[in-house]
Amino acid sequence: MDYSREIELKGHIIDSGIMTKVFDAIMDMGGSFEITVFDIGKKKQDESYARILVSADEETQLTEILSVLHRLGARPPVIEDVTLAAAEADRVVPQGFYSTTNHPTMVKYGGEWIRVEAIEMDCLIVVVPGDMRAICTPMSKLKVGDCVVMGDAGVRVEPPQRPRKVSTFEFMHGTVSSERPSETVIRQIAEEMRCLKDRGGKIGIVGGPAIIHTRAAPALAQIIREGYVDVLFAGNALATHDIEYNLFGTSLGMNLDSGTLAAGGHKNHIYAISEVIRAGSIRNAVDKGVIKKGIMYECIKNDVPFVLAGSIRDDGPLPDVITDVMEAQDRMREYLQDLDMVIMIGTLLHSVAVGNCLPSYVKTICVDINPASVTKLMDRGTMQAIGVVSDAGTFLPMLAKYLGE
Amino acid sequence: MDYSREIELKGHIIDSGIMTKVFDAIMDMGGSFEITVFDIGKKKQDESYARILVSADEETQLTEILSVLHRLGARPPVIEDVTLAAAEADRVVPQGFYSTTNHPTMVKYGGEWIRVEAIEMDCLIVVVPGDMRAICTPMSKLKVGDCVVMGDAGVRVEPPQRPRKVSTFEFMHGTVSSERPSETVIRQIAEEMRCLKDRGGKIGIVGGPAIIHTRAAPALAQIIREGYVDVLFAGNALATHDIEYNLFGTSLGMNLDSGTLAAGGHKNHIYAISEVIRAGSIRNAVDKGVIKKGIMYECIKNDVPFVLAGSIRDDGPLPDVITDVMEAQDRMREYLQDLDMVIMIGTLLHSVAVGNCLPSYVKTICVDINPASVTKLMDRGTMQAIGVVSDAGTFLPMLAKYLGE
Amino acid sequence: MDYSREIELKGHIIDSGIMTKVFDAIMDMGGSFEITVFDIGKKKQDESYARILVSADEETQLTEILSVLHRLGARPPVIEDVTLAAAEADRVVPQGFYSTTNHPTMVKYGGEWIRVEAIEMDCLIVVVPGDMRAICTPMSKLKVGDCVVMGDAGVRVEPPQRPRKVSTFEFMHGTVSSERPSETVIRQIAEEMRCLKDRGGKIGIVGGPAIIHTRAAPALAQIIREGYVDVLFAGNALATHDIEYNLFGTSLGMNLDSGTLAAGGHKNHIYAISEVIRAGSIRNAVDKGVIKKGIMYECIKNDVPFVLAGSIRDDGPLPDVITDVMEAQDRMREYLQDLDMVIMIGTLLHSVAVGNCLPSYVKTICVDINPASVTKLMDRGTMQAIGVVSDAGTFLPMLAKYLGE
Amino acid sequence: MDYSREIELKGHIIDSGIMTKVFDAIMDMGGSFEITVFDIGKKKQDESYARILVSADEETQLTEILSVLHRLGARPPVIEDVTLAAAEADRVVPQGFYSTTNHPTMVKYGGEWIRVEAIEMDCLIVVVPGDMRAICTPMSKLKVGDCVVMGDAGVRVEPPQRPRKVSTFEFMHGTVSSERPSETVIRQIAEEMRCLKDRGGKIGIVGGPAIIHTRAAPALAQIIREGYVDVLFAGNALATHDIEYNLFGTSLGMNLDSGTLAAGGHKNHIYAISEVIRAGSIRNAVDKGVIKKGIMYECIKNDVPFVLAGSIRDDGPLPDVITDVMEAQDRMREYLQDLDMVIMIGTLLHSVAVGNCLPSYVKTICVDINPASVTKLMDRGTMQAIGVVSDAGTFLPMLAKYLGE
Repeated sequence: MDYSREIELKGHIIDSGIMTKVFDAIMDMGGSFEITVFDIGKKKQDESYARILVSADEETQLTEILSVLHRLGARPPVIEDVTLAAAEADRVVPQGFYSTTNHPTMVKYGGEWIRVEAIEMDCLIVVVPGDMRAICTPMSKLKVGDCVVMGDAGVRVEPPQRPRKVSTFEFMHGTVSSERPSETVIRQIAEEMRCLKDRGGKIGIVGGPAIIHTRAAPALAQIIREGYVDVLFAGNALATHDIEYNLFGTSLGMNLDSGTLAAGGHKNHIYAISEVIRAGSIRNAVDKGVIKKGIMYECIKNDVPFVLAGSIRDDGPLPDVITDVMEAQDRMREYLQDLDMVIMIGTLLHSVAVGNCLPSYVKTICVDINPASVTKLMDRGTMQAIGVVSDAGTFLPMLAKYLGE
Repeated sequence: MDYSREIELKGHIIDSGIMTKVFDAIMDMGGSFEITVFDIGKKKQDESYARILVSADEETQLTEILSVLHRLGARPPVIEDVTLAAAEADRVVPQGFYSTTNHPTMVKYGGEWIRVEAIEMDCLIVVVPGDMRAICTPMSKLKVGDCVVMGDAGVRVEPPQRPRKVSTFEFMHGTVSSERPSETVIRQIAEEMRCLKDRGGKIGIVGGPAIIHTRAAPALAQIIREGYVDVLFAGNALATHDIEYNLFGTSLGMNLDSGTLAAGGHKNHIYAISEVIRAGSIRNAVDKGVIKKGIMYECIKNDVPFVLAGSIRDDGPLPDVITDVMEAQDRMREYLQDLDMVIMIGTLLHSVAVGNCLPSYVKTICVDINPASVTKLMDRGTMQAIGVVSDAGTFLPMLAKYLGE
Repeated sequence: MDYSREIELKGHIIDSGIMTKVFDAIMDMGGSFEITVFDIGKKKQDESYARILVSADEETQLTEILSVLHRLGARPPVIEDVTLAAAEADRVVPQGFYSTTNHPTMVKYGGEWIRVEAIEMDCLIVVVPGDMRAICTPMSKLKVGDCVVMGDAGVRVEPPQRPRKVSTFEFMHGTVSSERPSETVIRQIAEEMRCLKDRGGKIGIVGGPAIIHTRAAPALAQIIREGYVDVLFAGNALATHDIEYNLFGTSLGMNLDSGTLAAGGHKNHIYAISEVIRAGSIRNAVDKGVIKKGIMYECIKNDVPFVLAGSIRDDGPLPDVITDVMEAQDRMREYLQDLDMVIMIGTLLHSVAVGNCLPSYVKTICVDINPASVTKLMDRGTMQAIGVVSDAGTFLPMLAKYLGE
Repeated sequence: MDYSREIELKGHIIDSGIMTKVFDAIMDMGGSFEITVFDIGKKKQDESYARILVSADEETQLTEILSVLHRLGARPPVIEDVTLAAAEADRVVPQGFYSTTNHPTMVKYGGEWIRVEAIEMDCLIVVVPGDMRAICTPMSKLKVGDCVVMGDAGVRVEPPQRPRKVSTFEFMHGTVSSERPSETVIRQIAEEMRCLKDRGGKIGIVGGPAIIHTRAAPALAQIIREGYVDVLFAGNALATHDIEYNLFGTSLGMNLDSGTLAAGGHKNHIYAISEVIRAGSIRNAVDKGVIKKGIMYECIKNDVPFVLAGSIRDDGPLPDVITDVMEAQDRMREYLQDLDMVIMIGTLLHSVAVGNCLPSYVKTICVDINPASVTKLMDRGTMQAIGVVSDAGTFLPMLAKYLGE
């Protein structure tokens, strides 16, 4: 093997599985390695350090291997400044740009390490030389002339490491199973939420209309009223059916308290939307006393911001719905960077959208009756997601009960 | 069309959808029809009567059409006695035998109508001439010389008719959806169970091990203790993990109250089985104080019979498990004919097994996290099943709560 | 029962199940009925005629029952003109408006029957008096002053009736099962598509990115090239990954021909989008020789229009994507009214969106690996959908093969 | 931490993820560690060696930690002979018995290492002192007086290590996704099967009735005829419907070639069983020319053994079905130990049963339309299973095509 370069790794690299992934990647891609230095952390709290000479038969192969190792936190022993290239046109990416992970990331510029702001996966890093800032930038925001970070050089990634002590919350790491003790899992989520709020943490909810159809809306409204929710991401359907339920007792025309179809009920969601259009907005409809309870009501009354993103299947929509999806995405991003925990309930579309923009250190719980939804979320890169296979209609009332205890 | 025969239909044949199915069947199979008499029930309580001349191009085609109509309750205006043929050997069915539906069925023999006993689908009818009895007989029970009913002649089927008044329970007729108001549905099931017990009705539970894994066992134990269950159908896994949970707090080695894996817990189900083997039976283990709570404990203490059927994947098994599946089926059948309601939770295998042997008038509720399970049950002929897409771990505690109110 | 009104029904009302639904509805809603005239169609081709006196205890209850019967095709014996009301503001619906079904619909205006244009479910009907036109109007298009049809009076609905002869295609009516003979079903869909194209019919495809991920894109490209597709509805993901695959051989970074992850492949979809942005549009990229094959390429080369609707989870997006969802919906509607068949593959979001706007007479096939997707589509009102539980990656190659035979 | 013991680990322990799991286990269980020796394999081919001092606060906690590490291949630096205890009664396990993993296992007895025969998970090890043999024994086979291995001492486990070179087959390691390139995956399975047969390897098929219902039986019959299958595990349903299809063209009464219901078809599976009962066995029915093609026919003609295990839902059953499930399990075990690959198609029950008895080095592919089935298989300990989310009706014809190339 004629081409080789040295990299180093530092931290709890064995028990976090990073060394395993490094060796796997080298071998999967046909490379070879020699360990030149290996200082293993002798005790639980000690970090390890490894220096590894990676080899490959060809230059491009070596570059590709190093690019994968980079994303696992590997870096050359001596680090140069990042290389920059100017974007040639709006939204046209330079060939060879650095594509972000969702892990905390630093870039070396002017000899200094700068933390990349607003990190999320699959974006570019734009350096603002005068301000000594580096900003994670989705391609849709790339402007002509932006200074884009190229290649891996000068970039450092910090993948999550295994916490040293057992947190209440680490009970499930990433698995999805319909054979978990449901009440126990829900109780632990409630505990984690309480701890997090005690520390001043922030929690976001991503919700689909199944919350309303399964009659879990009163439980979610209660959770919002009790102060557990800092932002709500949803679509037209959740808000419409929530308002429909609170105006007419129905959701998609079904009387939720009796489980029967209401006569003429198929028009109720149209009336609900129409009432809000007449009032001008959900806030106005609450202020005028048109909407008197429910999820959206509690959001307004408790100053919990919400982002309602439009989708192609929407009726209406409500005036609060952002029909331009790129604009909705931007609004969503504004709220995401601050969150410590996100609970996604019964909506694959919004869960993937939010998951795409979340840093990897945000605790992410995905509740869906379909185990495939969680798998799909993780396939899309939201590896930190914990799956709970349950039904919104029984999950949320139990969560509300345990939060209340 | 050269071949034709006249049939008649009686009852609430329009609103029960029977006329529609009759016409569909004739047309699907390429036949034709002429309505010779049609007396429609003028008012809600009145029955209708139709006489229809069915035609086909060929004799066999006509026979086939009539055979389908027969299963919908159609019969010739004049009914002869059934034709019988003796079984030539054990378990060898005569060519042209009458195959049962799961609807109440009468046969005409010696000029008299006899109700077929123990009706279930896909069986033969054996007439015992001396006793004037007709017995629904699975092929595994057919003995050489048994008098088997041949063809449709002399057989009358009574498919279920739409009830004249709205029962609390008719809210869902046969649909399966994960978008129902979960608490409302569960409350209605609880109400129906209470009504049924007030009238002296009998309820069976068919359960899979997910009940234990999701920590719903205490709820089911409570429901049994409160007298709502008349028989339990399950397998080795449900009983083993119930006992494991009550002896060790684990199920499949997972500590259910904390949701963590118990050290050495992978051996607990083996110990649980071994303890019962040492005691001789579940009853002995309860009597000796080895088992002190749980589903099986409540069955023993409250004299609720149970049938534990073996399956190829069993560990152990427990001494109470019937390892011969045909024997287990017989034991199951003994209990099924008396039931008014069956609730199936988290087990496709046992649900299909029980469903196969249930008459169509037994209220059947199938609770599964996988909507495909209910569809499969209905595809196998258990049309009366109502599907609830939910998780055992949240369904059963809610059901227990509503039953307790 | 003090309130009653007479309605009539005409057509193949028994074998199409309409009479059953009428009686069910009356009884479910606590009403009563008396049949005053019933002329049954004696032979297969004859239509039936029923006149029914419907009664209820209260005026509102009666109105509600009649509203449901109306949607099943029932109408009063003497029909007045429709009642109109002017919309008081844009997108604000008048209280008591008539909400459409997805069945062909006529309104009586100026003593004449006018066919409602562009019928789809859950919309309003706006009458344009001068032009003697009636237009099905989604609430988002309602303008102040529009003359909206109120109540059921003067409106006639024609629900689909059972075809008199067995069509090749009627093999499955509405069922969903993963236990169908897959090749047989696919062969029959191919036959139906061929027949339909021979008659000059039009076929739409609704597709999700699973088509690309499962490597079924070459098969769909071939089907388009062979002229079977008249319009394609999809999102940014399908088009992006199709172009990614054709530029780089990957989809979401996975090398589809070897099934392995390509080094640096996670950037390929960004490059694909960027290349199209640089070219200006997909058409330009095809014209300039950037895109040389694939689904989008065949659409451009064969003048098959496509609608790419934006969604909140989009990267990029491609310049051809309509990011405003209401605008995308309008564009979709333009193409839908002409179609005779729609095949939906692996996308619940777009399938529901298209299904919402489809008249009930359009043949609708929904192919998804998840049986719950088809159920959800039907729950949303697209009753005519036929479900095929299969995997895009094996379904499309087989369909292409059978179309080619 | 007052209690500590030293263990050692050897092999490719970093890149196989074993070190990570060891550290995870110690920390999850509240223990601590100090690495006393660590010789890292410098190059790809070199093995590593670690000596670790594990500590805990209590003796039992330490024992529990060591028991988990043992299952990962850890062992004390000096190894004593195993401790044995005699079983006090048939099927009653001694308290503290050693419960097997499904990895290759050695026991030290009389100072020598003996390989444990017929290894499978969750069993006991019985040493036969005179013969110097150690036999993996399910509790159902345990006899009074058997010498049972107690605790971990003297037992060595060899968990699978990452292969040094990329095998064609390692493309998926354990993942389950419905978004894989289907044809590519199937082609690779075909290649692996061909390679394996070239080396004289053995392949087992585990199949459910969906193979017949989806009309994939001709494809499986061809694969058997071409010599790719060494044993077939199934139930009554697969064999019955295969024979039904070959006698009558139907499966569960549906005409598979046209996809329509056959008149009187609901009796065909009863006739099929009855014909085989008359003949005496499937072999006799083939010999007498009753069965002329299909899966079971090819098994008989090509001397491929099959095990048909009974289940509680069986009709009939066929005389070849083993109705006692424990006996069926034994028969299954006889064939399993020799296999190199098992392909499981459309049957969760039999897949879990077979998976329970398979050593971890057997290549295991699980094909199911429901992703949850594969997850469940892995949850039950069959970690090596690779999931393919596809439909038997399209998977098997494609596999037959690629095997034929």
